[in-house]
Amino acid sequence: MQMKICLHIPVKGLREAVLAALPDADLTGTPADAEIVIGNPPMEALESNANLRLLQLHSAGTGRYPELYRTHPHLAICCATGAYGHTVAEHMFASLLCLMKHLNEYAVQQQTARWKDLGAARSIRGANVLVIGLGDIGGAFARMCRALGAAVTGIRRTPAPDPETADRVFGLDQLDALLPSADVVACALPETPQTRGLLNKARLALLKPDAYLVNAGRGSLIDEAALLETLNEGRLAGVALDVLCTEPLPADSPLWHAPRILITPHVAGGDHLPDVGENLARISLHNIRALAANAPFQSLVDPATGYRARP
Amino acid sequence: MQMKICLHIPVKGLREAVLAALPDADLTGTPADAEIVIGNPPMEALESNANLRLLQLHSAGTGRYPELYRTHPHLAICCATGAYGHTVAEHMFASLLCLMKHLNEYAVQQQTARWKDLGAARSIRGANVLVIGLGDIGGAFARMCRALGAAVTGIRRTPAPDPETADRVFGLDQLDALLPSADVVACALPETPQTRGLLNKARLALLKPDAYLVNAGRGSLIDEAALLETLNEGRLAGVALDVLCTEPLPADSPLWHAPRILITPHVAGGDHLPDVGENLARISLHNIRALAANAPFQSLVDPATGYRARP
Repeated sequence: MQMKICLHIPVKGLREAVLAALPDADLTGTPADAEIVIGNPPMEALESNANLRLLQLHSAGTGRYPELYRTHPHLAICCATGAYGHTVAEHMFASLLCLMKHLNEYAVQQQTARWKDLGAARSIRGANVLVIGLGDIGGAFARMCRALGAAVTGIRRTPAPDPETADRVFGLDQLDALLPSADVVACALPETPQTRGLLNKARLALLKPDAYLVNAGRGSLIDEAALLETLNEGRLAGVALDVLCTEPLPADSPLWHAPRILITPHVAGGDHLPDVGENLARISLHNIRALAANAPFQSLVDPATGYRARP
Repeated sequence: MQMKICLHIPVKGLREAVLAALPDADLTGTPADAEIVIGNPPMEALESNANLRLLQLHSAGTGRYPELYRTHPHLAICCATGAYGHTVAEHMFASLLCLMKHLNEYAVQQQTARWKDLGAARSIRGANVLVIGLGDIGGAFARMCRALGAAVTGIRRTPAPDPETADRVFGLDQLDALLPSADVVACALPETPQTRGLLNKARLALLKPDAYLVNAGRGSLIDEAALLETLNEGRLAGVALDVLCTEPLPADSPLWHAPRILITPHVAGGDHLPDVGENLARISLHNIRALAANAPFQSLVDPATGYRARP
């Protein structure tokens, strides 16, 4: 069974990997006519595509795509959970250590040949780390923190003990109770109506004045105006944002120059490490073959919840 | 037995810790008259001190101090091996990850509100890390790298298998053979005549063109002119220096503006994390009591070699 595939995705090496595994693949499809679409094209094109059988997203989050289940009852939507965990987590971890050692500030003062001790550093060892979103990315980040001596508390949609990853796991309903004791809050949540604006002014006020905040999930998780106020009030030891509500962050945004903030331009994931392309190819090929063989999909998005079906 | 102690040391909290443990201690000594000197005062003062029984250095390295054994046959010199390992290692590790993710460069472009992807990152996972000086600091760094998935080769003066710390351990005679396969070279060596200028132009040329170099031992280990040439030739993916041949690094040094370099002003150790002061107090009190009780010292410097006696 040969089906028309659309590769709507900027990840390097994926086309080559698909053709190596499926030499006869027809890659001439578009989002509006292909039976298999790999990537995250505009919803409008997919809505009009009556042939669509498999949508393999290149993101870990699912966005609005689960709405397609209403119009396409025979569709399988799979996300790319598992492709980004290590890459994004290592970026988050590097950002946290960078803030703890003031390396971003030293890099800036290096520009003016300034040799100035910026004072006490902080250690990940013994820190209480709260990971909001203990999935693929958050879990990998949690394990890195623990490997360097931190105590990790995880929050996930469906809490269950996970002793390999976290010392304790709770549901989102415990967030307000857990924020005040965290030395580090790391966010790796997808965007859903429940997570938008989750870290609002009231919750940011629950944080320790010298806590660190790292976000690599979706920018909308944090109320940026409230965060700016918080930083300008002298609260929080450091904030690292790889995702923002508006990307690119506008040049006139005051966030660029907020104190104790490190902004990176959404580079934690994508194909910034070679293994992401390899992971995406592996997941995509698995699901193309699963569709052909009527076998179980990997990272299938549950029509009932819009989340990945738990294995 | 009450002896005159000189605290010639800038570490916060040490005086309080000594007085808490030894309320009757006489802390009025000077480097020229005390029986116990804690710190690293000028050699001249110590050479003239006929009372000197214990010199507790606040450094892991011993510098020229072992020369005092010639003039003071009853002296015990102890170093502070063990006080700095975690603190310095975590700084080195943070610096390495910072370079791998371009965070220092993102921090600089943040100053001009610039949202620009700087391209591929690198991962510590799977990297071949060569640690030159697998002592207290180098060993802690090695364990951090391994915890995040790196393969570690260690070089130490007296090589011996250390499976908790490194996959392989060699002597310094294997350095030239090991440099070409390293993705990361991390230096945590004390200054000795053998280590001065160890990483000269010829050895820097043995490194992979995309290797990382991190130095937190002594600045003199690296030929800085050769390093500058190497970076200007486009070689090495990144260099992090916390120690330099001349400190503070002069404002007109071209190293400040060399490409792909991160310079921090000798802040990896010292009292930048609170546990250093606690560790120094613990070692100092142990050795003060050992002197009084004629018991074994901790981190005693071997008169024959000028190095810490192996436990």
